[in-house]
Amino acid sequence: MHAYRSHTCADLNKDNVGQTVRLSGWVHRVRDHGGILFIDLRDHYGVTQVLCDPDSAAFAEVEKVRSEWCIRIDGEVKARADDLVNPKLPTGEIEVFVRGIEVLGAAKELPLMVFGDQEYPEETRLRYRYLDLRRENMQRSMTLRSDVVASMRRRMWDKGFREYQTPIITASSPEGARDFLVPSRLHPGKFYALPQAPQQFKQLIMMSGFDKYFQIAPCFRDEDPRADRSPTDFYQLDLEMSFVEQQDVFDTISPVLAGVFEEFGGGKKVDNPAEWPQISYKDAALWYGTDKPDLRNPIKMQVVSEHFAGSGFAIFAKLLEQEGTEIRAIPAPTGGSRKFCDRMNAFAQKEGLPGMGYIFWRDQGQGMEAAGPLAKNIGPERTEAIRQQLGLGVGDAAFFLGGKPKAFEKVAGKARDVIGEELGLTDQDRFAFAWIVDFPIYEQDEESGEIDFEHNPFSMPQGGLEALNGDPLEVLGYQYDLACNGYELVSGAIRNHKPEVMLKAFEIAGYDEAEVKNRFGALYQAFQYGAPPHGGCAAGIDRIVMLLAGTSNIREVIMFPMNQRAEDLMMNAPSEASSDQLMELSLRIIPQD
Amino acid sequence: MHAYRSHTCADLNKDNVGQTVRLSGWVHRVRDHGGILFIDLRDHYGVTQVLCDPDSAAFAEVEKVRSEWCIRIDGEVKARADDLVNPKLPTGEIEVFVRGIEVLGAAKELPLMVFGDQEYPEETRLRYRYLDLRRENMQRSMTLRSDVVASMRRRMWDKGFREYQTPIITASSPEGARDFLVPSRLHPGKFYALPQAPQQFKQLIMMSGFDKYFQIAPCFRDEDPRADRSPTDFYQLDLEMSFVEQQDVFDTISPVLAGVFEEFGGGKKVDNPAEWPQISYKDAALWYGTDKPDLRNPIKMQVVSEHFAGSGFAIFAKLLEQEGTEIRAIPAPTGGSRKFCDRMNAFAQKEGLPGMGYIFWRDQGQGMEAAGPLAKNIGPERTEAIRQQLGLGVGDAAFFLGGKPKAFEKVAGKARDVIGEELGLTDQDRFAFAWIVDFPIYEQDEESGEIDFEHNPFSMPQGGLEALNGDPLEVLGYQYDLACNGYELVSGAIRNHKPEVMLKAFEIAGYDEAEVKNRFGALYQAFQYGAPPHGGCAAGIDRIVMLLAGTSNIREVIMFPMNQRAEDLMMNAPSEASSDQLMELSLRIIPQD
Repeated sequence: MHAYRSHTCADLNKDNVGQTVRLSGWVHRVRDHGGILFIDLRDHYGVTQVLCDPDSAAFAEVEKVRSEWCIRIDGEVKARADDLVNPKLPTGEIEVFVRGIEVLGAAKELPLMVFGDQEYPEETRLRYRYLDLRRENMQRSMTLRSDVVASMRRRMWDKGFREYQTPIITASSPEGARDFLVPSRLHPGKFYALPQAPQQFKQLIMMSGFDKYFQIAPCFRDEDPRADRSPTDFYQLDLEMSFVEQQDVFDTISPVLAGVFEEFGGGKKVDNPAEWPQISYKDAALWYGTDKPDLRNPIKMQVVSEHFAGSGFAIFAKLLEQEGTEIRAIPAPTGGSRKFCDRMNAFAQKEGLPGMGYIFWRDQGQGMEAAGPLAKNIGPERTEAIRQQLGLGVGDAAFFLGGKPKAFEKVAGKARDVIGEELGLTDQDRFAFAWIVDFPIYEQDEESGEIDFEHNPFSMPQGGLEALNGDPLEVLGYQYDLACNGYELVSGAIRNHKPEVMLKAFEIAGYDEAEVKNRFGALYQAFQYGAPPHGGCAAGIDRIVMLLAGTSNIREVIMFPMNQRAEDLMMNAPSEASSDQLMELSLRIIPQD
Repeated sequence: MHAYRSHTCADLNKDNVGQTVRLSGWVHRVRDHGGILFIDLRDHYGVTQVLCDPDSAAFAEVEKVRSEWCIRIDGEVKARADDLVNPKLPTGEIEVFVRGIEVLGAAKELPLMVFGDQEYPEETRLRYRYLDLRRENMQRSMTLRSDVVASMRRRMWDKGFREYQTPIITASSPEGARDFLVPSRLHPGKFYALPQAPQQFKQLIMMSGFDKYFQIAPCFRDEDPRADRSPTDFYQLDLEMSFVEQQDVFDTISPVLAGVFEEFGGGKKVDNPAEWPQISYKDAALWYGTDKPDLRNPIKMQVVSEHFAGSGFAIFAKLLEQEGTEIRAIPAPTGGSRKFCDRMNAFAQKEGLPGMGYIFWRDQGQGMEAAGPLAKNIGPERTEAIRQQLGLGVGDAAFFLGGKPKAFEKVAGKARDVIGEELGLTDQDRFAFAWIVDFPIYEQDEESGEIDFEHNPFSMPQGGLEALNGDPLEVLGYQYDLACNGYELVSGAIRNHKPEVMLKAFEIAGYDEAEVKNRFGALYQAFQYGAPPHGGCAAGIDRIVMLLAGTSNIREVIMFPMNQRAEDLMMNAPSEASSDQLMELSLRIIPQD
């Protein structure tokens, strides 16, 4: 017989009755029932009930074991009495009578119980991660992550992509965040950097003629702490293709992600990828107040300026006399109560706006009536025109925000989320996707008036060189995001592969040729030697697993995460370097005040 | 029609004749045959011959293109005349008559030709890696690497393993090589390290109850330059299992690797993994002079001391009077000529030994005769006894080395390799594997007499605590390597999971409990909470791909490698950091003299 096990703790059932078996695992729980010891023996695969009565030669040993001791037992499989069968357990038909036991690893008193649902401070969980990870929920999250990544890989291979590894110790990358630096010992005073993304490398792979690249790629950014992201690194499904247009990238990645969400989404509805809407950046801002809209929520905002221009609601009427202002409505079907409307108004105030005007429609036995101060101010005709435009009726409400869109859009988007949630309009059992397209290439700094890249400097401007000779703020890029349930899951672009267009694009953002060569030398050089048109995208793996696991804490889906102060409490990182190490690296630490 | 292609450059054949197609790719080669331009158009998938005659409206444009321009062409597929069919090309039945052309990316004069077999200095190849990678051989090596890794993954999943990612930004690991350090910005003066291997993490994953782990894992070591390894990082197929003994690890990884070699070995014979020999470290040293023997070579060394003790060959006879000395023979079937024997003797001298004595057997028409000075010195009886022990005959030779084995073993091993190669005994069309087992846990420093770990401090000593209470230099470990064709492909061990055994093992090597806690705190702590017996191994992926690609230059199997001075010439790494970056990291560079 094998030294440790003839079966796993999930294997045994009625067919094994009468067999002598060997199991190894952890003591999940011990109970004493009238002198007989019952142990739930747990391994990665499941739990088996083993028991030992005082007649057994092993009893004295079994009596010593405590929670989380790792043990091996030999025993005989017996059927449980019919009324003791546990149908929820795959091994629930049997139990194992212990004849022999070996303690493989004893356990000290536990700082964290594996059995049960007790909550522990995150610091405790991270310090004793190896105990935390034994808990059922964490076992499930980690295997989910592993399975999701494997499924992505399989789907990418099925689409004719190969995975190529790009360097992890490399040069500074221009993604805009802070690099982690790695001092070079062989070249004193010089530094490598960990890649913020394989962006330049994947483009160079296209220059190298590889056609279809993907990678489950670690990305490193020295970020300031934020609850929902790792302060050091994250993983993305990174892909790039040659000889493609934007739609080709969509047609590639959409079914891959839809497939993953179907496979691991626990039965929630996944929108058909062939029908994922493509919404312009501009429309997304107008309709949803964000470039990562949650389309599970059916609410779509609308411009209603005409109904307020010159109306009796002086605040809006006056606002509209300024250039660039608009009034937008958030329709709120079923939100037609003063209580709800006041709560939403208070929400807007908490978010820093003066408030949200509202109208709601009711029928107090005398036919439909529009209520709320706004309705009074603008009068019944305008109120009715608004109702008709928004397609609302008795029991519904609408909220109104005015000003320069940039100033209120974000709050409007948040209000839309809250309204959808509170009214139960947001379908919780669905993954709703949308491509956001036509991002502007540039943005203007409001204070300095300077023009800089809005996103990624490597995107191809729609209209090419010609477009760049016009108003830069009007130039849209072949650049896109995929939104799912209010999160950005994917970001990508068709790249700018033409050196002359690249130079012009950077010139507009204030970089001369010398700077382009200096910062993006390899890519700029490569573009001179027969560059193919190419494009791609990257999907955030941690975020996808979080959505599938139903958690908003990224540390729930990472095996050994940093805490929010970028420390690994278990491994004790970061830590002091020895003076020898520093000497070898030609570094000295500047003392802190 | 798609903007760039209706087919790849490998797709078209007789069935497409008459179709109008669109192809994109690189101009591999242009030829002018009597005014008609022939272009070999190349993409990742293949080559298609396209041609343009002066009557075509596209001729003027086509005339401009040069090698490595990236172009799109529209054209008509025509069958080649029977005598012009190229059976070596999948598209060799057809050619495409160009009707339209678009230059997608022009190319400057090339620093490196893609077409043809011209050799370039490695610096040129690395600086223009995107051109170098377009060459057929590099395309093949990179896809091979990608395919090998995918095959490994598939095979590990098929064996019930899941892939879990371990941290890349972490604490210093105790593998013995130099860490790459990463300064922490949020914790001034402190450092992370890149992992030399996921050793501690994979053991912690076992402590966490995951049972079967694998990972295609990047490993980082700040190594001094050496031709056959990367100076910064390498990849391994890393695996770990709980509740296993040594043989279980062998039974897991052997068929995975055998499968990979079968799949990608180009038809070379792969030894049946069920029959891979297990050779003790001690026997490997005796028989092959190395712990990574090349078993394609049938030569097995033997101890022949008895035949020289008290013999007329004074050098050996005297040697044998000293304690710990031995005479070993390298049999060399078919090596029976003075010329060959002298050459091998010269080889040994070049390697720093006084030389290798030899005997060879010939028949000059008067029956078998033993030749060489050694034979004369020891006389016919002893010579014949040696011949019989080694199983040699006419036309064969034997070489002899004497002294303390440690002093000559390495050269003996090299001589065995050279003899096998030169005599054509080494089967070039085979991958020959052997597990090397029973490594000693400790070694003694010859000068200081201090005892330290021979390999990995985490291995379980055979015999456990009891064995550690005896002579430490006699203690063997459950530690093993897999050798293939003279290379170490895999290294692994059953781990020491018992805290008390761990403490004792470290104590012998001079580490007290405080030091163990300090250096391996997480693991030592984890062992206190129900540690399962576990073990595993890691297989070197770069090395495996090198063997399969038939190259001894590691940079041939890495997409964007460092050069031997640990520089990335294409990306310009390492490079200066800005003073702002250094300030943020609280670092100052010590000026070099």
